[in-house]
Parts: sequence; C-alpha cells; structure tokens
Amino acid sequence: MLFFTQCFGAVLDLIHLRFQHYKAKRVFSAAGQLVCVVNPTHSLKYAPTRCAAVQASTEQGILPPCHHHEVVHDPQLVPCTCPLFSCPWEGHLEVVVSHLRQTHCINILQGAEIVFLATDMHLPAPTDWIIMHSCLGHQFLLVLRKQEKYEGHPQFFATMMLIGTPTQADNFTYRLELNRNQRRLKWEATPRSILECVDSVISDGDCLVLNTSLAQLFSDNGSLAIGIAITTSKVHSSEAEM
Amino acid sequence: MLFFTQCFGAVLDLIHLRFQHYKAKRVFSAAGQLVCVVNPTHSLKYAPTRCAAVQASTEQGILPPCHHHEVVHDPQLVPCTCPLFSCPWEGHLEVVVSHLRQTHCINILQGAEIVFLATDMHLPAPTDWIIMHSCLGHQFLLVLRKQEKYEGHPQFFATMMLIGTPTQADNFTYRLELNRNQRRLKWEATPRSILECVDSVISDGDCLVLNTSLAQLFSDNGSLAIGIAITTSKVHSSEAEM
Repeated sequence: MLFFTQCFGAVLDLIHLRFQHYKAKRVFSAAGQLVCVVNPTHSLKYAPTRCAAVQASTEQGILPPCHHHEVVHDPQLVPCTCPLFSCPWEGHLEVVVSHLRQTHCINILQGAEIVFLATDMHLPAPTDWIIMHSCLGHQFLLVLRKQEKYEGHPQFFATMMLIGTPTQADNFTYRLELNRNQRRLKWEATPRSILECVDSVISDGDCLVLNTSLAQLFSDNGSLAIGIAITTSKVHSSEAEM
Repeated sequence: MLFFTQCFGAVLDLIHLRFQHYKAKRVFSAAGQLVCVVNPTHSLKYAPTRCAAVQASTEQGILPPCHHHEVVHDPQLVPCTCPLFSCPWEGHLEVVVSHLRQTHCINILQGAEIVFLATDMHLPAPTDWIIMHSCLGHQFLLVLRKQEKYEGHPQFFATMMLIGTPTQADNFTYRLELNRNQRRLKWEATPRSILECVDSVISDGDCLVLNTSLAQLFSDNGSLAIGIAITTSKVHSSEAEM
C-alpha cells in the first residue's frame, strides 16, 4: 500500500514538473528556448572568511570591488566562487567550471537564450538558486538569492557573473526578463567577473532587485520564470579599451 | 552687491538646469523627445481620511482596490486624486485634470514619449514628483514617490495612472525606462485607473520599485531621468471585453 502511495506521489511530482515547464515556455513564447527548472539550496552558512573584508567595508558604507587579494597569494588562483558554501578550494580560472560542477553539483546549460525557472520561492531566506550558463564561448554563473538585507523584509537579488576576468566581462551584456500578468520587468547590464564577490554585488544592489510583493506578482504557483539572454557588446569593449 | 550676487546665482541655476536637460536628452538619445524637469514636493501630510479604509486593510495584509466608495456618495464623483494633499475636493472625472492643474499646479505635457527628470533625489522621504502626461487622447498622472515602507530604508516607487475608468485603463500599456552606466531597467504594465488609490498601488508594490542604491546607480548628480512611453494595447482591450 505504501509502495503504491509513493508511486502515485512520484507520478504527481512528474506531472507538476512537466506542467511548470510548459507554463514557463508559454510565458516566454520564443520557440526553442530551453527551460531549466532550478531547485533552491538553503544556504546554511555564508562564507564568513572569504568575504569578511568586503562585508566589513560594506557595513562602513564603502563598497570596493572584492578581488580576494587579501586571501589569494597567487593572483592567478581563484577561491571557490560558489556563493553557497564556505569552500576552502582555490584554483586557476580555467578549472573553476569543473570544480563547480563536480564539487557543488551546479548544472550547466547551453544556448544564448534560456529560461531559468526557480521553484519554491516561498522558502525562507537565505536561499540561493544557481545555474551555470554556457554561450558565446564563455561560461556564466546565474545567482538568484533570497536575502534579508533589512531584517524581516526578504528581497530577491539576481545577477550574472562571467567565469573570466573583468576585461573579458566587459565584452558582454546580459538581460534578465520577468513577464507575467501584463507586466514586464527587464534588467540589462554588463556581467561582473567571478573574481569580484557575488556578495558585494548584492550588497551594492547593482543587480535585479525584487521586493517580495513584486516577486509574488511575477511568480506562478511558487515558481519564478526568468528569461536570460547574453549578447556581445562591442561598444562596451571599445570603451574598455579607451 | 546683494543684487549682483542674486543675479549671479540665478544665472548659475539656469546653466545647471540647461546642463541637466542636455544630459537627460543624451541618455535617451531618441531625437525630439521632450525632457521635463520635475521638482520634488515634500509631502507634509498624507491624506488621512481619503485612503484610511485602504491603509487599514493593507496593514491587515489584504489589498483590495480602493474605489473610494466609502466616501463618495455619487459614484460619478471622484475625490481629489493628487497624492500630495488631503484635499477635500470632489468632482466628476472630466474636471479632475483642470482641478489638478489649477489647484495643485501640476504641469501637463504632450507627446507619446517623454523624459521625466526628477531632481533632488536625496531629499528625505516622504517626497513626491508628479506630472500629468497627455497622449493618445487621454491624460495620465505619473507619480514618483520616495517612501519609507520599512523604517530607515527609503525606496522609490514609480507608477502611471489613467485619469479615466479601469475599463479605459485596460486599453493602454505604459513603459518606464532607466538607462545609465551600461545598465538598463524597464518596467511595463497596464496603467491603473485614478479611481484606484495611488497609495494602494504603492503598498501593493505593483509598480517600478527602486532601492536607494539602485536609484543612486541610475541618478546623475542627484537627478533621475525616467523615459516614459505609452502605447495602446489591443490585446488587453480584447481581453477586457471577453
């Protein structure tokens, strides 16, 4: 009897997942767009040592870019950039992707335009939804974070980081788009380099920010569909060269 | 001597205003767009009686549309919709525009696309920036409000209301766009009717919401340029008819 109940539950879950997938595709009607269902990860602890310097300066109202120079002796080495865990790993930029995939089980998706479907938006802060996105010959990390910047008032922050240097990041523009109920919200910016700290980008507020009420308006049955597009930005690269 | 100092100050103010106007035009590069410099109005008091019912229900977590039926006996009469003052005026929808212009000195601008340049963004909350916008045969009210929804954390809320009925409002789509420093934020929605209360739209969070940090990123020398465009939305009108 228990076996049949479990089977029935699994089938219901599959139907629900398929339905969510269909709805996200319908919202972003461009044919052929890849929809990726991303489950949340409740952040048990935020890296206390990794970004301590940044957090201290943020509290004082100063917001310098976090290049991790305080902890990385070899400037070619990058500490683990996954915002979820206080991971002691350090490595070269070229092996960050394989580390994130293997150690932190972060999925990687191909394609210039994808739909990121974050489930269970109601979960308490801090919670992260993370995916890697491969396109235009580079890998990007999309982080959606639910965080209480002001106690008792959780907000959602979404940003895209290039797994590359700041100079490489200047060559791209990313777009995040929410579209539901005759409302549309678009954020376009140059991605930050993963050498900068995701925590500092969020403290800075230099990303897509959603209040809980706005997130609810765009959510459908507890899931938030974010359309993502990455393009090269020739203007930005020429400006960076100047 | 004092006269010359005052003259010099006035000339400097004019140069500064001209410079701001030029910068806003440069940001929104579409030729021929009208730039309107909007000065803030510090809201000394919010209408305590007008929206009391809405505020009470908002505090309880219920957000019904505010149709003012509690205070308006004749459903054809509209109480004064200017969010700045607790104005006892009531009148028919057709004369709201002239009341707002004459009694509250709110400017009216023509054109499908305009740039709203709000000055002195640093002023403490509550502060409003208001303009009327005439296009497509109707008048719209743009309200930008700085408000402390959470004590000590001011936010900016921008919304557009049609000076007309909810059915008429369903025929339009408005777009607010911020564009600066390789960042772009766009909000598109159906305008609300002025018969609904602007306070409830803001409490609802069903508008463009900016944290102070994001507002600073888009501001230039204390002024925020918002590109506004209004279009007719055939889809919405056909949906409303169904």
